[in-house]
Amino acid sequence: MSATDHAARAAALQRFLLERIPPTRALGLRVARYDGATLVLAAPLAANVNDKGCAFGGSLTSLLTLAGWGLIELALQARGFDCDVFVQDSEVRYLAPVWNDFEAVATLAEGESWDAFLAALAERGKARTRVACTVPGDAGAPAATLVARFVAKRRG
Amino acid sequence: MSATDHAARAAALQRFLLERIPPTRALGLRVARYDGATLVLAAPLAANVNDKGCAFGGSLTSLLTLAGWGLIELALQARGFDCDVFVQDSEVRYLAPVWNDFEAVATLAEGESWDAFLAALAERGKARTRVACTVPGDAGAPAATLVARFVAKRRG
Repeated sequence: MSATDHAARAAALQRFLLERIPPTRALGLRVARYDGATLVLAAPLAANVNDKGCAFGGSLTSLLTLAGWGLIELALQARGFDCDVFVQDSEVRYLAPVWNDFEAVATLAEGESWDAFLAALAERGKARTRVACTVPGDAGAPAATLVARFVAKRRG
Repeated sequence: MSATDHAARAAALQRFLLERIPPTRALGLRVARYDGATLVLAAPLAANVNDKGCAFGGSLTSLLTLAGWGLIELALQARGFDCDVFVQDSEVRYLAPVWNDFEAVATLAEGESWDAFLAALAERGKARTRVACTVPGDAGAPAATLVARFVAKRRG
């Protein structure tokens, strides 16, 4: 797929999220970048601030989870799969407070592969994979991380 | 503490959350009940719906995390501790879709005790404890669970 295809899919994902999942509008969600392997979502601090003036943990987790979900959705769409994608479980670590607008960066987790995931989906109509998502913090260290397992089920 | 004290603290917590943490207004958060051992928060499906018509996972996690945070805040306030309380990490399981308005029920996790937590806080000015939170689903089975570790630090 070309960079133009990726940009078009990223724009369509943003429209879908904002139109069909109202809580994403409260987050102020934006799709920042997509290159086929990494999806980056962004949100402003102002809409997601807590009583201490930094980002509310629930908003960080929402953006992280949506980044993982979106990464899988885009990978499936690009390969012609029509699926429902659900988050099954996740582990979140809040490592440092976030004092600015923030991003959530999603990639496939270590040890996972699109080939294995898509082969299982083609064979059984259902497959699981894990995604690793990070909110970058100061000096390159992560401010929050999430590892989540998602299930995809073919429709119809 | 009397039931009247608990109700007053619950009402004050709701005011604090809605005034000081704007994302709680988007959730439509309400403090439903507090009895000194269990805190129950509630949110409407309409504000938290996803593309499938059930509750958005990020909203479930936000309400679960806030229930855990609130449980610790109220316990500390009742005992005269002035602390900052932060979530450190959490594990979330999404067990069943939620098709209605929902609640998040927070209690101290198994193996934890307020006495041990408060003793550590009094001695070192900082302490950790784990909270177990559940979104009840149909027929008494949980629809989502969260176990989270919180840190409290005395102020000043």
